Amino acid sequence: MIPTFSLGKAEEKRLNEEYELFIVGGGPAGLSAGIYAIRAGLDAVIVEKTLAGGLVSEDPLIENYLGFESIEGEKLSKNFRNHALKYINIISNVEVLDIKKIDDRFFISLSTGQTVKSKAVIMATGTTHKKLGIKGEEEYLGKGVSYCVTCDAYFFKNKKVAVIGGGNSGAIAALYLKSVNVEPTVLEFMPKYMCEKAYQDQLKNNKINYIMNAQVMEIYGNGEKVIGLKYRDRSSNKEYDLKVDGVFIYVGLIPQTQSIKSLGINLDSRGYIITDKKCRTNVKNFYGAGDVTGDSGQIIISAGQGAVAALSAYEDLRLK
Amino acid sequence: MIPTFSLGKAEEKRLNEEYELFIVGGGPAGLSAGIYAIRAGLDAVIVEKTLAGGLVSEDPLIENYLGFESIEGEKLSKNFRNHALKYINIISNVEVLDIKKIDDRFFISLSTGQTVKSKAVIMATGTTHKKLGIKGEEEYLGKGVSYCVTCDAYFFKNKKVAVIGGGNSGAIAALYLKSVNVEPTVLEFMPKYMCEKAYQDQLKNNKINYIMNAQVMEIYGNGEKVIGLKYRDRSSNKEYDLKVDGVFIYVGLIPQTQSIKSLGINLDSRGYIITDKKCRTNVKNFYGAGDVTGDSGQIIISAGQGAVAALSAYEDLRLK
Repeated sequence: MIPTFSLGKAEEKRLNEEYELFIVGGGPAGLSAGIYAIRAGLDAVIVEKTLAGGLVSEDPLIENYLGFESIEGEKLSKNFRNHALKYINIISNVEVLDIKKIDDRFFISLSTGQTVKSKAVIMATGTTHKKLGIKGEEEYLGKGVSYCVTCDAYFFKNKKVAVIGGGNSGAIAALYLKSVNVEPTVLEFMPKYMCEKAYQDQLKNNKINYIMNAQVMEIYGNGEKVIGLKYRDRSSNKEYDLKVDGVFIYVGLIPQTQSIKSLGINLDSRGYIITDKKCRTNVKNFYGAGDVTGDSGQIIISAGQGAVAALSAYEDLRLK
Repeated sequence: MIPTFSLGKAEEKRLNEEYELFIVGGGPAGLSAGIYAIRAGLDAVIVEKTLAGGLVSEDPLIENYLGFESIEGEKLSKNFRNHALKYINIISNVEVLDIKKIDDRFFISLSTGQTVKSKAVIMATGTTHKKLGIKGEEEYLGKGVSYCVTCDAYFFKNKKVAVIGGGNSGAIAALYLKSVNVEPTVLEFMPKYMCEKAYQDQLKNNKINYIMNAQVMEIYGNGEKVIGLKYRDRSSNKEYDLKVDGVFIYVGLIPQTQSIKSLGINLDSRGYIITDKKCRTNVKNFYGAGDVTGDSGQIIISAGQGAVAALSAYEDLRLK
């Protein structure tokens, strides 16, 4: 499941047996938390399932993070990573499988087999892409079905694709596809634009087809690769066929909270961690920051919350 | 009070009679709010008392804003301003004197004599420097007494100065002074370091004198300029004399809420605006973001809150 070279890399930068603060996740929230934690003098570490930087790297272009007028997600994500690495040890490609609390210590079980103790934990695990759950989605994953335009747009140059989901992320995906000579059609379930005005304008300027009221029923192919999809117009109830070589799915996100099931952290109805203004949860010395709290959805908000969580941890561990 | 050329400038970029969203203050919170508001399609404007960018420009060096490893405050502040100007009209050098609410409209009275209406207001006015209230402080303002090292360090090259207040901002001020060949002594009221570990280490590395338990009693001069100060050691109760040519005061901040006195916004005991997680206050369609809420104190947190406030305003004005 985890490639050997990564495991090896992680072991080069060894984890201690115990920390004051353990940060799970190396997206904007986790990295900002790391900078603030170390600067405050806490003994802290970040453990990240894949590569630090978060889903930021999947964003083709970011224009709303104050201070950067326009920057590729991959570049900004690298900026973030390098900034945090000036301060904090980041263990990449290691997954947190389970967190338990015994007395006043958290016990964090990792995919390496190791268990690390910590006085406090910041959960900054973010979200993963939601699946549609329709026919063909799983069968054609990697054969035309994708959840990431920056990763896969390349394969569809001069071809037609569908983007399922017309919210901000779907709109950004479509604009990116267009900019690299892929011809996208956006399919939105709701009867109106679900993205910011700025994106609506850009979609129109780029003459990108945005079909509303569209419920996608099935993705189909020739056994080897995707060749089209079927959708239903929810107002007329008519079925339509769309010939495409690729399908990019942007229908939402799922908070990553599998590892904290036994901790008894309060989650909201959608599964997001409930925090107060200071990023504290119902469990003492356990904090939530970024997309996993459902209060963010924006890089700048996540980065701010990471700082808040680290300062709360500092306050709770050192000043109380 | 307001120089004519600024008034003229502000009038060049005319204010409309009415907006959907009026943002008071052009620091990180206000600018980030502006970017998000316009991108969401709201008709919004920023009005700033001095120059947009906020107190950021007074910070010699910023190293904890995720994405910028190390940048001068003045540069970052300019980045912020230019980024926001791509989207939103910023009226500089105009002060908001009073905000009233009649029915569902806010009436915002400006120092230009104009009154502007708006459906919603984001208050992002930040804080001003707290004064010590001791003898000599007012008398020698601009004659050795200052609240801003980046503005005034220049005048004290190769001279000795005192920095009153040893929290983060005082520590940063002292480090900056040292780096430009001014010899600072930090005077801290409390019996311990009041700044982050990272700054403590840098103060020590730079052999900067940090006197704890020091209550400054008086700043004195020769009538023309500062020549020293008197402080009391709170543990021994002994009085000391410190010969300095300058005194930089970093003893805290005061939230700027004068203009909203008649609105009935809930403030905490220190005068900060009370907001919920979504930056909403007790008054409908009135939001607080950044330092004026007392929940920030950090640039990255303020920028995040600005985005939160704008998204809340969008939700309340357009989706409800």
